[in-house]
Amino acid sequence: MLLLMIFIMLRVVFLGTGGALPTVNRNPSSILVNREGELLLFDCGEGTQQQMMRARTGMMSLSSIFITHFHADHVLGIPGLLQTLSFHDRDAPLTIYGPAWVEQFVKLVSLLGYCRLNFEIKAVPLEAGDTVHREGYVINAIASEHSVPSLAYALVENERPGRFDRRRAEELGVPVGPLYSCLQKGESVEVNGRLVHPNEVIGPCRRGRKLIYTGDTRPCEAIIRASKNADVLIHDGTLAQEKVDWARESLHSTAKEAADVAQKAEVQRLILTHISSRYTDDSSVLLEEAKEVFENTCVAEDLVEFEVPYGK
Amino acid sequence: MLLLMIFIMLRVVFLGTGGALPTVNRNPSSILVNREGELLLFDCGEGTQQQMMRARTGMMSLSSIFITHFHADHVLGIPGLLQTLSFHDRDAPLTIYGPAWVEQFVKLVSLLGYCRLNFEIKAVPLEAGDTVHREGYVINAIASEHSVPSLAYALVENERPGRFDRRRAEELGVPVGPLYSCLQKGESVEVNGRLVHPNEVIGPCRRGRKLIYTGDTRPCEAIIRASKNADVLIHDGTLAQEKVDWARESLHSTAKEAADVAQKAEVQRLILTHISSRYTDDSSVLLEEAKEVFENTCVAEDLVEFEVPYGK
Repeated sequence: MLLLMIFIMLRVVFLGTGGALPTVNRNPSSILVNREGELLLFDCGEGTQQQMMRARTGMMSLSSIFITHFHADHVLGIPGLLQTLSFHDRDAPLTIYGPAWVEQFVKLVSLLGYCRLNFEIKAVPLEAGDTVHREGYVINAIASEHSVPSLAYALVENERPGRFDRRRAEELGVPVGPLYSCLQKGESVEVNGRLVHPNEVIGPCRRGRKLIYTGDTRPCEAIIRASKNADVLIHDGTLAQEKVDWARESLHSTAKEAADVAQKAEVQRLILTHISSRYTDDSSVLLEEAKEVFENTCVAEDLVEFEVPYGK
Repeated sequence: MLLLMIFIMLRVVFLGTGGALPTVNRNPSSILVNREGELLLFDCGEGTQQQMMRARTGMMSLSSIFITHFHADHVLGIPGLLQTLSFHDRDAPLTIYGPAWVEQFVKLVSLLGYCRLNFEIKAVPLEAGDTVHREGYVINAIASEHSVPSLAYALVENERPGRFDRRRAEELGVPVGPLYSCLQKGESVEVNGRLVHPNEVIGPCRRGRKLIYTGDTRPCEAIIRASKNADVLIHDGTLAQEKVDWARESLHSTAKEAADVAQKAEVQRLILTHISSRYTDDSSVLLEEAKEVFENTCVAEDLVEFEVPYGK
């Protein structure tokens, strides 16, 4: 019996894992997060709406789009997606967050291609350090280092209740059933003429899950700090270390550099994305050099999805 | 021996055959024409650049984009395609033709997503009746009937030389070889002390091939006139006849209406495109109702290509 164990869905679907040049197998950047049915997009490259159809993610419960920066390969899927949502008679507002230029971008989009939308678009500019509060989690905007104003994002769930000590509850004579729920809700219960308080059977609160998406960036301190003990770090891994000069010039990261960040931040899992078209046929060089530094690494692939596990 | 028979490639590749709502199998509108290595795009919906990669059409010899109208599903692939061409160090200018709004559209595109291009974009507004002259062919802009300013296009090849009458040439004593070429180039040749003139062995000029693409439109007289005896008519076939009221309201055509146009214009072949997402799983109803009126019909599919044959 997993009584009192509450699982909240936190699923990540890679919709676009390519670099600035898409390929046949890698769309431009986009990641969808499904948290208990609420959909969030992080970046929205060209073709994102069709990738959502291919991955069968659904579309109508999309609440927000978080843009890391306004390079073409991270935003050109927005106008088509908005148009399609509108054709499907969406009327709920949609919020687009991003660096300072987001308001101008949304204005431009509204002028393109006779887009007439049935719903409101709210453009919300963010700065590093800002927090967007949602039911059960927050999204933190983090400083990243790219060639245009840019942000990384951390999705951080609220603390969840401590572990229920069933053996202790039994020792205290609490019968299996509704009193367990009362205790977990923070209510004291009376058992055999004695009050049993929640702190006698429930451990300290446990931290929620933490998921980081860097967008395009050089490795940087702010991201290492924000990623501390994260469950999943999705990091720019555009290039192999032999191209580190080009990574520095174009303000991207190598796979090895991403692994260094993962190691310093002591994350659980590293996923490399924004894979350059150079590695279309074989990205094993990226995986191998990252694994030498940080073992629990993989390279993102379009349409792959996974559930973010609860930490131990 | 096919001496003197000149074949010019005229290949059509369907990149996007869907309606306003793309599906997993149908991208938004785009058709590529490859005429002897020169690439022309007719409409450029979201995802067109990746479809070009999938169809291995090449990209760098794209000379022009012809836009039928500025609805989102016909133009949102342009910014990403331009960006990719620029990343590939294109420096040749690219011309975008379309209804009057084309100049504003190109200005908006240049403001989106930090697109910095290495090459010039020429925006050329066209009106119905305008002709774009190219080496060996013209593109005629034709009035169409849609809910925003719109054009259909006809690609019409120049006349080609008449048929060479080889038997007559033999009768006149012209030896097989270089004199055949001289005659076909319009030069008279001396044979046994007598001048043989081209018109003695070469028939009247034959018309070049004609290909029509309507974009989104109601069936209309201007398109019927422009399509007279066309080799291929690619016509809006968004809906089945049972949805004719919605076709009238949304200013599209039914498959049967497209077939009526093909029959009146006496074209060789009709291809239905802009297929509504209603018919994602089965478009046979469109094919069947069109074939009842015009037998040589097919429904376009993404990534299908064909060579436009020379008329008899």
